Amino acid sequence: MLTLKDLADRFQLPFRGDGGTQVTGIGTLAGAQSGQLAFLANSKYSMQLAATQASVVVLGEADADASPRACLISGNPYTTFAQISALFDDGETVDEGIHASAVVHASALISPSARIGAYTVIGARTVVEDGAVVYPHGSIGQDCIVGEACVLMPRVTLVKRVRLGKRVRIHSGAVLGADGFGIAMHQGHWIKVAQLGGVQVGDDCEIGANTTIDRGAIDDTVLENDVRLDNQIQIGHNVRIGAHTAIAGCAAIAGSTTIGRYCLIGGSAGLVGHIDIADKVIIGAASIITHSIRQPGEYASGVPFQAKQDWLRNAVRFKQLDGMARTLNELKKKD
Amino acid sequence: MLTLKDLADRFQLPFRGDGGTQVTGIGTLAGAQSGQLAFLANSKYSMQLAATQASVVVLGEADADASPRACLISGNPYTTFAQISALFDDGETVDEGIHASAVVHASALISPSARIGAYTVIGARTVVEDGAVVYPHGSIGQDCIVGEACVLMPRVTLVKRVRLGKRVRIHSGAVLGADGFGIAMHQGHWIKVAQLGGVQVGDDCEIGANTTIDRGAIDDTVLENDVRLDNQIQIGHNVRIGAHTAIAGCAAIAGSTTIGRYCLIGGSAGLVGHIDIADKVIIGAASIITHSIRQPGEYASGVPFQAKQDWLRNAVRFKQLDGMARTLNELKKKD
Amino acid sequence: MLTLKDLADRFQLPFRGDGGTQVTGIGTLAGAQSGQLAFLANSKYSMQLAATQASVVVLGEADADASPRACLISGNPYTTFAQISALFDDGETVDEGIHASAVVHASALISPSARIGAYTVIGARTVVEDGAVVYPHGSIGQDCIVGEACVLMPRVTLVKRVRLGKRVRIHSGAVLGADGFGIAMHQGHWIKVAQLGGVQVGDDCEIGANTTIDRGAIDDTVLENDVRLDNQIQIGHNVRIGAHTAIAGCAAIAGSTTIGRYCLIGGSAGLVGHIDIADKVIIGAASIITHSIRQPGEYASGVPFQAKQDWLRNAVRFKQLDGMARTLNELKKKD
Repeated sequence: MLTLKDLADRFQLPFRGDGGTQVTGIGTLAGAQSGQLAFLANSKYSMQLAATQASVVVLGEADADASPRACLISGNPYTTFAQISALFDDGETVDEGIHASAVVHASALISPSARIGAYTVIGARTVVEDGAVVYPHGSIGQDCIVGEACVLMPRVTLVKRVRLGKRVRIHSGAVLGADGFGIAMHQGHWIKVAQLGGVQVGDDCEIGANTTIDRGAIDDTVLENDVRLDNQIQIGHNVRIGAHTAIAGCAAIAGSTTIGRYCLIGGSAGLVGHIDIADKVIIGAASIITHSIRQPGEYASGVPFQAKQDWLRNAVRFKQLDGMARTLNELKKKD
Repeated sequence: MLTLKDLADRFQLPFRGDGGTQVTGIGTLAGAQSGQLAFLANSKYSMQLAATQASVVVLGEADADASPRACLISGNPYTTFAQISALFDDGETVDEGIHASAVVHASALISPSARIGAYTVIGARTVVEDGAVVYPHGSIGQDCIVGEACVLMPRVTLVKRVRLGKRVRIHSGAVLGADGFGIAMHQGHWIKVAQLGGVQVGDDCEIGANTTIDRGAIDDTVLENDVRLDNQIQIGHNVRIGAHTAIAGCAAIAGSTTIGRYCLIGGSAGLVGHIDIADKVIIGAASIITHSIRQPGEYASGVPFQAKQDWLRNAVRFKQLDGMARTLNELKKKD
Repeated sequence: MLTLKDLADRFQLPFRGDGGTQVTGIGTLAGAQSGQLAFLANSKYSMQLAATQASVVVLGEADADASPRACLISGNPYTTFAQISALFDDGETVDEGIHASAVVHASALISPSARIGAYTVIGARTVVEDGAVVYPHGSIGQDCIVGEACVLMPRVTLVKRVRLGKRVRIHSGAVLGADGFGIAMHQGHWIKVAQLGGVQVGDDCEIGANTTIDRGAIDDTVLENDVRLDNQIQIGHNVRIGAHTAIAGCAAIAGSTTIGRYCLIGGSAGLVGHIDIADKVIIGAASIITHSIRQPGEYASGVPFQAKQDWLRNAVRFKQLDGMARTLNELKKKD
């Protein structure tokens, strides 16, 4: 049983209230019951503090006086909450060893400490390292590496030549190493460009559900360490994503684009192919990036939404924008 | 064998023509052959009525005189057609009982009237209720409920803590209950926020192919009754979607956003996180919604498409828009 | 072992340098090592030619003089490279015959020369023709045809009534033949429109990872020959896509839209339903197409991205655009 004092000691943080207060679970500020720990990290929710039933609240120094409950004080309450949340997470549930139904190629190498779930298929020359966990329905092709302590949730596919670093976590339905989209027109018919490269994923990356990362045409598609991808993201062949970059759901990065380190890319954003994005670039949700960005900073595109009848009136004017600008220039010249 | 009179009786609708006309199948107005029933619900297609070969046409009162064929008259021809179409649908094709290859945890509870397809895996403490059908390659983790008469098409994944109401239909490749995208920066490295909640899906919901619905960080992600989701939609953690709301393909709803009842959200639309959408809001295709909407009504964003050379001239002016507005204000003041 | 002369003979192309130069693999212009063949097709990369370590470079006549290495001269270097790349591709890796674990319905017909991978399920009346390859975890429902020499990569789903032509290649996670999104409102509750059609895919089509193609409501959804779809594309029910059209990742085509032949549709583009696109139309990335296009040519929508503080100033003016246009018209009239 964890107490407030246990948490304060563990994360080296000051606390207020009874250090012996027991923490049996996690709740939201608004919904927590007695025994639960909640957090306050977004000022949008600070009006919920006064009425919270949580036994302990993780919050910043400035909010401590307003807390009606015991609290753990952190310079970064959300990060502290993240660290505490891990203490309450489920463990992995795949049984030890290789499930009797798994089909493992004779040339594959599975660590005795790896766990391979039911109906998993593992191809030639593939290596699964120590402590890795493959949930049921894993589909792992040839020449892959599933690194130390990786976790592949149910129904992950590594098509071929996919090499994962350590502690990579991949969610259900993700497909790594499918053919990049390479086609060339020949006498009125498309011909396919063979995709001869692979996918390299660094340590501590996380890849969301139904996300796709194609293997490279010649060289590899690369995710450096600690890249975090949400669900339904599409990463084209030969993309390179720098360490510690995080990308929200449904973003699409076209082929051969490189993204720097510590970038944040919003949901549903699109980046065209063959461009370069510097380190520490922040791209707004649903923005379309059509050329390289050389400077760190925030970038966005799009137009604000409106009630439809207002939007229609404005949108039709967009088609007249160049004409308007010319008229305006003429009037100004005359002025 | 169904006749026109059978249908008229069943749905309590008036008809014209020979009530004994047999209906052996369904066709489009343009493509139907003798014996088939077609419908006219969209005036765009009314010019096809005169030449139709359908034996029976479902249509509104106003179109009945123009019909060269027997017709079934409905105040809402599309709804009537929908009701009739169900009579011609295939039944479910999973054999009775639990397929010999299914791997079911000892603590799972499967109703004797449920059907479990080949290569399905079912985790600890999961319950599959009466009449539920799980097609092959189902991947159902721990602590899930598959409610009465649910249908999970081939290769659906419920990761964990996913509780489905009655008659929920989920299409292939959908992933419910994967980790929400929760990360916090700590000393230059991301740490993961454990996702401790689940997913609740109400009765009569339908969820499209390759759609993803993440489980909540603390509380659950919730779909109320009769929510209808098309393919490749992304629903972030802790989203709440009101009853009878329908969302078209490829829309993305970021975390902690709430959507009201009877909303219609267009294809490829995006809603940022932590906003609230009222009941009966209609959002246009590909619109990006960046803040809460408090009033019912139609909303949209975006700019109209054009021939590329025209679009380029106008699009470049967008970057001058604020300057144009200032110049215009000055000219007006002087005027 | 291939030599430069072998390649020149095979593709009937002129070469420069030692015809006996051996080609053991493929590399990029910048990264190739001795023994590898590289190509130059995009002038963006021509500065890499001088320093390349490739043993052979495929390039256009105009670049031949600048090549420090033996070269193969082609009017279309990218197409020639595509043809050569196929010579270095892996073969298919599914063993001959039907894997012992496959569950094949008694009424299905599997050619003796087809290869069916582990844990594949094949439904009633489905036919798998000569030389077709189904990788592990294939999920093929009833009344499907997998044509001659098709390749279904791991974990492809054909739900039902999906008929593939010859040499169709489908990537992992793709779902063909799921229910189209047909719903009708009835007394405040949605009812489902049964989806009675199928999916027809022509010869030589390629379908990307996690792409979804719904089956038709009444008639079929159709891809003509040589249609090329990238990853995570959504094709609604009753769409028809003309021969030789290529669509980039994450595009979405809503129901009943028809697209002509030899079209190119950019990534993340969206087409609303019930419109018609002519032959040889090119649609820019992330463009939203809201009505029919009758003429070949290039089309686009969207606004350029900017640094966020600039974008905000301009974006807010979009809501004033109609007012600005009216003011401008008045000023002009007075002028």
